[in-house]
Amino acid sequence: MVPKKAVILAAGLGTRLGKITEETPKGLLKIAGREIIYRTIKVLQDLGIEKFIIITNPKYIDKFKKFVENKGFNAQIVINEHPEKGNGYSLYLAKDYVDEKFILVMSDHIYEKSFIERAVNGEGLIVDETPRYVSIDEATKVKIKEGYVEDIGKNLKEFDAVDTGFFVLTPEIFKSAEKIISEKGKAELSEIIEKAKVKVTPVNGFFWTDVDTPEDIKRVKKLIIQNSVKGSGDGFISRYINRRISTKISYFLVDYVTPNQMTVISFLIGIFSALLNFINIPLAGIVYQISSILDGVDGEIARSCMRTSKFGGYVDSILDRYVDFAFLIILAYVTITEPIWWVIVGIAIFGSVMVSYSTERYKAAYGTDIYKDIPTMKYLIGKRDERIFLTMLFCLVGQIKALFVLLAVLTNLRVVFTVYLVWKYKKD
Amino acid sequence: MVPKKAVILAAGLGTRLGKITEETPKGLLKIAGREIIYRTIKVLQDLGIEKFIIITNPKYIDKFKKFVENKGFNAQIVINEHPEKGNGYSLYLAKDYVDEKFILVMSDHIYEKSFIERAVNGEGLIVDETPRYVSIDEATKVKIKEGYVEDIGKNLKEFDAVDTGFFVLTPEIFKSAEKIISEKGKAELSEIIEKAKVKVTPVNGFFWTDVDTPEDIKRVKKLIIQNSVKGSGDGFISRYINRRISTKISYFLVDYVTPNQMTVISFLIGIFSALLNFINIPLAGIVYQISSILDGVDGEIARSCMRTSKFGGYVDSILDRYVDFAFLIILAYVTITEPIWWVIVGIAIFGSVMVSYSTERYKAAYGTDIYKDIPTMKYLIGKRDERIFLTMLFCLVGQIKALFVLLAVLTNLRVVFTVYLVWKYKKD
Repeated sequence: MVPKKAVILAAGLGTRLGKITEETPKGLLKIAGREIIYRTIKVLQDLGIEKFIIITNPKYIDKFKKFVENKGFNAQIVINEHPEKGNGYSLYLAKDYVDEKFILVMSDHIYEKSFIERAVNGEGLIVDETPRYVSIDEATKVKIKEGYVEDIGKNLKEFDAVDTGFFVLTPEIFKSAEKIISEKGKAELSEIIEKAKVKVTPVNGFFWTDVDTPEDIKRVKKLIIQNSVKGSGDGFISRYINRRISTKISYFLVDYVTPNQMTVISFLIGIFSALLNFINIPLAGIVYQISSILDGVDGEIARSCMRTSKFGGYVDSILDRYVDFAFLIILAYVTITEPIWWVIVGIAIFGSVMVSYSTERYKAAYGTDIYKDIPTMKYLIGKRDERIFLTMLFCLVGQIKALFVLLAVLTNLRVVFTVYLVWKYKKD
Repeated sequence: MVPKKAVILAAGLGTRLGKITEETPKGLLKIAGREIIYRTIKVLQDLGIEKFIIITNPKYIDKFKKFVENKGFNAQIVINEHPEKGNGYSLYLAKDYVDEKFILVMSDHIYEKSFIERAVNGEGLIVDETPRYVSIDEATKVKIKEGYVEDIGKNLKEFDAVDTGFFVLTPEIFKSAEKIISEKGKAELSEIIEKAKVKVTPVNGFFWTDVDTPEDIKRVKKLIIQNSVKGSGDGFISRYINRRISTKISYFLVDYVTPNQMTVISFLIGIFSALLNFINIPLAGIVYQISSILDGVDGEIARSCMRTSKFGGYVDSILDRYVDFAFLIILAYVTITEPIWWVIVGIAIFGSVMVSYSTERYKAAYGTDIYKDIPTMKYLIGKRDERIFLTMLFCLVGQIKALFVLLAVLTNLRVVFTVYLVWKYKKD
């Protein structure tokens, strides 16, 4: 069972971020279009966590109240009048608000969804034995003994894993907190965790990191965009060319352009490339390839700032079909005259739609992604990014008839292979 | 909670069926390609019933054993050495095999899936207050008082509902059975039900019926075929013309042709109709329309004999696209010469695929049928059956260019409307 409540520690002053945090607490910094804690709360909420307790200091209280109200989150703001008493003291203040197993998470940490999905089912301190996105120097290290915390701290020389800032705790923890506070008048979270000798659950291999410095903000934004590449339906051109450029574009646009706006922009550029065939075919091919690169940006932005929508994906894929059709039919109109060649154009256009139809119809029938169910599908060429790249190349060298023959063969062979693979793997 | 076990009464000799049941017990009669009790057991098994107890007489025991083994059902065959003691005695023999709530069902009754889905969650005797498929004269009638059986019998003059032959009972029922048997030496099920004053649960408005006479077999087969019409994606032509013919064809073919064979046959006839355009366009149009009628048969047969498969549906819809493409491209090749008209042909061909793409892509995105989610979609014209009928009409009068203009406009307008409706109802 997933805990019902989550405590978020957000009382730190984030001094290492300098000017930025004079106005805005770290947790409310927008990175790639979303506040850091929005990302955590949204995912936790979708997983069934019902209530959030945000511990913050008096300076930021209004900001958090406004944020929680705006987003409609079921959250309680608790004030820590003494942030100088350490983040363990902040945790202690949650005592009156939780009475069973709860999640504890830091407001300046970002986690990908798959991490959180696993972490909420863990117990005690969630650690990462193979952290890829945090610097080991800066990280809080953990020495584990028989599944429990033995030692924890930034300066451990021997350690087994790294503290991810994500915990699944029971109210037992407040006893250890109380002892330390009554002895020292303050407490760090790591002291409490060490004293309580909590369990350790490893969750390895996912993207998570924390934000401490202005450089971190840029680094994290870049990582979020990179993690937003969907990939499952990407062909070779997408993987090795388009995505490298589109993620850079997304990095710059994510704060200014909505996914829907980007869908419209790349559609219009696609239609523009089609019309360019009337004037200059090689140029049309180049602009078509540019529109293909931009076609990835709307999805990347949508996933980066957690604004994906089924309708967005639906419209995007319909518009892609119209762009491809417009490009090929106008290219044919300005170059092809003989009916027999028009038949080949027809086969190429039809085959291009059928490539998408055969994969989407699979999802409609089986309810799952064909690329996940049938890994061989990834190596079948003829995906949109590959077709567009080929189209550009043939436009550049002016071999239009050869292009249509190639597309006619390539796309329909791909459909035949797709049906064969579905038969082989999923025939009943 | 759905009961774990189901008792099936199959000890009757089915004398009213004459010669037919000398060899085969009623429950194992194949109607529309499937044994009567296969239909019931399969649906119950899918709903979670784990074990079946089939009570039969010595004459049929080998038949049932073979059937159960062939199909791999988890069933126990129990012999009633005295079928003349009535079907109440058969029920009584189940006593040693059930110890908690169980389902009791007759081997000569056919129920549609939706009926069984509701009935298994009912209690006591499942009745139908508005039976549509059984003759009231022959039916066992039930008088209900405050939710319990008051009176039951074929000759009741006043009654509230009809006995469906489907029960959800507790082992309590065996006490009433025992009393009657010890008094009279035999028992009818209806006597036991009346004595026990069991609860009544109405499940109204679904297809169910029983099989008593040779005429029943034909009637039931027809009803099964009619109930196998899927319908949700049918256009006007399908509803008012194609289905009326295809169900008659299915009626004759269901015992001889598999759904996959039928898919191949209608595909080949479709491709043949496309090739006919080289010889005689009006004839091609007519054969194309015939292939459209036949296109419904594979699905009807598959659903009638419970052999639907995702792969079957997948291949069928891919082949449909190829038939449509082949017809239009060959029709264009033999009639169109000017490039501008080829552009219109291209738009018509592309739009035809996009009609299917826009509905299937919806299912891929939202996981549900667009016609169920957005009822207005049913009234949008441009579905395959309508396009093919129009194509035939225009082929008959030789107005091919007008046909392509019409298809180009109709199909793409339909796609625009589809996207609009999805936006209106599901933009979330």
